[in-house]
Amino acid sequence: MDLNSDSGESFSSWQMGDDEAMMAIVTSANIACGFHAGDPSVMRSTITAAAANDVAVGAHVSYRDLAHFGRVFIDVAPNELINEVIYQIGALQAMAAVAGTRVSYVKPHGALYNAIVHHSAQADAVAQAISEVDDSLTVLCQPGSEIARVAGRKGLRVVFEAFADRAYNPDGTLVSRREPGALLHDPGQIAARVVRMATDHQVIAVDGTVVGLDAESVCVHGDTPGAVAIAAAVRSALADAGIEPARFT
Amino acid sequence: MDLNSDSGESFSSWQMGDDEAMMAIVTSANIACGFHAGDPSVMRSTITAAAANDVAVGAHVSYRDLAHFGRVFIDVAPNELINEVIYQIGALQAMAAVAGTRVSYVKPHGALYNAIVHHSAQADAVAQAISEVDDSLTVLCQPGSEIARVAGRKGLRVVFEAFADRAYNPDGTLVSRREPGALLHDPGQIAARVVRMATDHQVIAVDGTVVGLDAESVCVHGDTPGAVAIAAAVRSALADAGIEPARFT
Amino acid sequence: MDLNSDSGESFSSWQMGDDEAMMAIVTSANIACGFHAGDPSVMRSTITAAAANDVAVGAHVSYRDLAHFGRVFIDVAPNELINEVIYQIGALQAMAAVAGTRVSYVKPHGALYNAIVHHSAQADAVAQAISEVDDSLTVLCQPGSEIARVAGRKGLRVVFEAFADRAYNPDGTLVSRREPGALLHDPGQIAARVVRMATDHQVIAVDGTVVGLDAESVCVHGDTPGAVAIAAAVRSALADAGIEPARFT
Amino acid sequence: MDLNSDSGESFSSWQMGDDEAMMAIVTSANIACGFHAGDPSVMRSTITAAAANDVAVGAHVSYRDLAHFGRVFIDVAPNELINEVIYQIGALQAMAAVAGTRVSYVKPHGALYNAIVHHSAQADAVAQAISEVDDSLTVLCQPGSEIARVAGRKGLRVVFEAFADRAYNPDGTLVSRREPGALLHDPGQIAARVVRMATDHQVIAVDGTVVGLDAESVCVHGDTPGAVAIAAAVRSALADAGIEPARFT
Repeated sequence: MDLNSDSGESFSSWQMGDDEAMMAIVTSANIACGFHAGDPSVMRSTITAAAANDVAVGAHVSYRDLAHFGRVFIDVAPNELINEVIYQIGALQAMAAVAGTRVSYVKPHGALYNAIVHHSAQADAVAQAISEVDDSLTVLCQPGSEIARVAGRKGLRVVFEAFADRAYNPDGTLVSRREPGALLHDPGQIAARVVRMATDHQVIAVDGTVVGLDAESVCVHGDTPGAVAIAAAVRSALADAGIEPARFT
Repeated sequence: MDLNSDSGESFSSWQMGDDEAMMAIVTSANIACGFHAGDPSVMRSTITAAAANDVAVGAHVSYRDLAHFGRVFIDVAPNELINEVIYQIGALQAMAAVAGTRVSYVKPHGALYNAIVHHSAQADAVAQAISEVDDSLTVLCQPGSEIARVAGRKGLRVVFEAFADRAYNPDGTLVSRREPGALLHDPGQIAARVVRMATDHQVIAVDGTVVGLDAESVCVHGDTPGAVAIAAAVRSALADAGIEPARFT
Repeated sequence: MDLNSDSGESFSSWQMGDDEAMMAIVTSANIACGFHAGDPSVMRSTITAAAANDVAVGAHVSYRDLAHFGRVFIDVAPNELINEVIYQIGALQAMAAVAGTRVSYVKPHGALYNAIVHHSAQADAVAQAISEVDDSLTVLCQPGSEIARVAGRKGLRVVFEAFADRAYNPDGTLVSRREPGALLHDPGQIAARVVRMATDHQVIAVDGTVVGLDAESVCVHGDTPGAVAIAAAVRSALADAGIEPARFT
Repeated sequence: MDLNSDSGESFSSWQMGDDEAMMAIVTSANIACGFHAGDPSVMRSTITAAAANDVAVGAHVSYRDLAHFGRVFIDVAPNELINEVIYQIGALQAMAAVAGTRVSYVKPHGALYNAIVHHSAQADAVAQAISEVDDSLTVLCQPGSEIARVAGRKGLRVVFEAFADRAYNPDGTLVSRREPGALLHDPGQIAARVVRMATDHQVIAVDGTVVGLDAESVCVHGDTPGAVAIAAAVRSALADAGIEPARFT
């Protein structure tokens, strides 16, 4: 089981998260590429830390929207989105090269991630960009998503992720953040869920149903001190269960 | 003799220059990388046109300053400038890859170009960025500049350029733009100067002195209809003199 | 009848339109406020030209999106949109004050203009921002739009506009730009239509139906040399019909 | 004695400082206007908190440089800087109006603050902008600075500030941040210094010299939890000395 986390989301004089702490916990780092967060110096220090910890590097590509942190849908034309994604991947590839590592996967960020679960044209644009720039890149996304389908059709490797701290519906989809109970907060409960995801490929849905989960990676957060503690609890619980997290790439 | 020109300086809905016309004239295109001009779609269409015309692709890297088109000095810390330059080169490299070509040189833009004639720390940062990201990249710059010295010390290939439409001082430096007569406007005169640069490696300074010019490339402009006409006149005069412009890379 | 035009849409080193020529033609100028176009110096020179020509000044507020010129929908949260609109109006108000004039109306730009024809929450946000910052500001918009309704409910004055160069459906709505014939190009035909709009408050729809038009202002474009010529033709035809265009404010 | 602090320096999803805590401590808030920090929603919530605490509102104007937080010198042309400053003040004025307060002073930020201590042309531009937009605005700056001189010459009210946590040279200038001991860290020592500034208009320089200080305001920081604690200690020590901080406006 791989553990991935959003990384390098500081920008200019603003700090977000504790990338250094997270690099000792996760096996894959989704690194911001400058469009929602991550100026070039943040990108470099983050990717250098990833390389030092033998953490896989993913391009955390986004809509071009620093002012809203990539968190709102932008109806950008697909043929422009293709180029915006290529631009971000290329910038991160160069940073990876100077840090002695390489970009091995792409995980879209925020509103783009959510949009391409359903939005065919934008999903196709993202997959097209990835296949044009380097068709050995893996796409990290949600099972059942449009991006998974189109990336697969283009011959890209697709890896599914689960979410450590999100509640699940009985059909395997995530409970909407607008619903109460959508987010879990108890480190022990979250860690136990991830262990079950890793060992039995299952999660307990909000109604108690046991749901099968087809995920090779689990997303953990590191944007607050509490989140880092939860991520550490997850890693520790996996170790207690005899599981050594491993990169999917 | 190589002919180079700034290209891909449109952005969003704003047009600048006639890249298509210039691609039929020049042998090297300095392509904006998004920091002073050139959104990802502009970058792609420009680099695609360069590839179609077998024009060499250079990264026209800049200070991060769309609001002033990279035309004012920014006292950015050298260790940040390194990363900003790497970022821009990487983005263009990816765009080159999808267009079936490659970035073969770097020419800094505007205020950065001017600053690193003298500013040692920023010159060192630019050269360091280039050598880190790809030490086979050539640096296109002015003879006698600090960037030429530090790039040479780092083992980078350095190519000097002359300016088709700028007046020269007897010591081989450019007449400041603030002086009258700094810019030449007559297509015939400009074309004749470039022919002399190409054949005799000489230019006539403002006081009539014959000055030796150590340049493998001549910069021509294409940002106005008049500029494109001048560039075409230069190309045509070179042809009449039996000179076929050729990429320096 | 008022003639309005988008103005001040240059930015940095990029030119768009011929604001000076248009100021001699129109009676109301929709001036970009920096979010899709219009840096502070462009804003100032445009508003100064408006003041010199006794042209009414409107805030041409937009989504925050220089990279796409405000032309794509952004699903920004309404409570953020309120503040983004206030910010833009305030910046233009200060520029108006130093130029010896005042902002008298607001016309949303591009994708925001189109969104708030139907999008209730964003329409409410725009109207709310206007009423908070200065409830004497007029809202210039399309008849039948959501923004017209909510602005009216908040007690704002609402003025409707027609489009000089757009084809109309028999129900008074605009023919979609994706349909053939959506845009008119013949200066004489466009000028004649505007005269009819001004005198009979009517326009001939694509199927020949005579449609009543409740518009106090007609939007003319000035972003290309051809557009300026059309605008001049409109002004001239109105003069021939004995109509002196006048500000609606 | 007035206490001022930089405020509203969060942006997008990035937090900086604890504006709410500081509003209970200071009497004047220098509020970022979007050019180095402070998106419109941050501006609004900050100015609303200032109004609720009867804190004076200042425009914390900056170079246009979110990517470096306004902390590096930009050689922007003075006639453009004028307009950039007017733009920022206007945006904050509108936000003040909707929050039921008003902008009463201007304090430049970061690299611009430092530049206009010496840079005559930029200092003149800042003073010109202020006097054009509202000549009743006070300028908050360092004694002996170029901005103080030119603002005075233009008839603007000038108020000097001292720094709670900076070491002073015997000539009353600040010890450069590059020198050891430039920054004080002990809350008790800092509080005692501010009390002395408020009662005796004096500060002890690094060599023990007693230096007279002509300051009506003291700048305290609030960008870290430690900084907020120091500011609270300053306020408390002033209260113990029978001094109630008061706005200079």
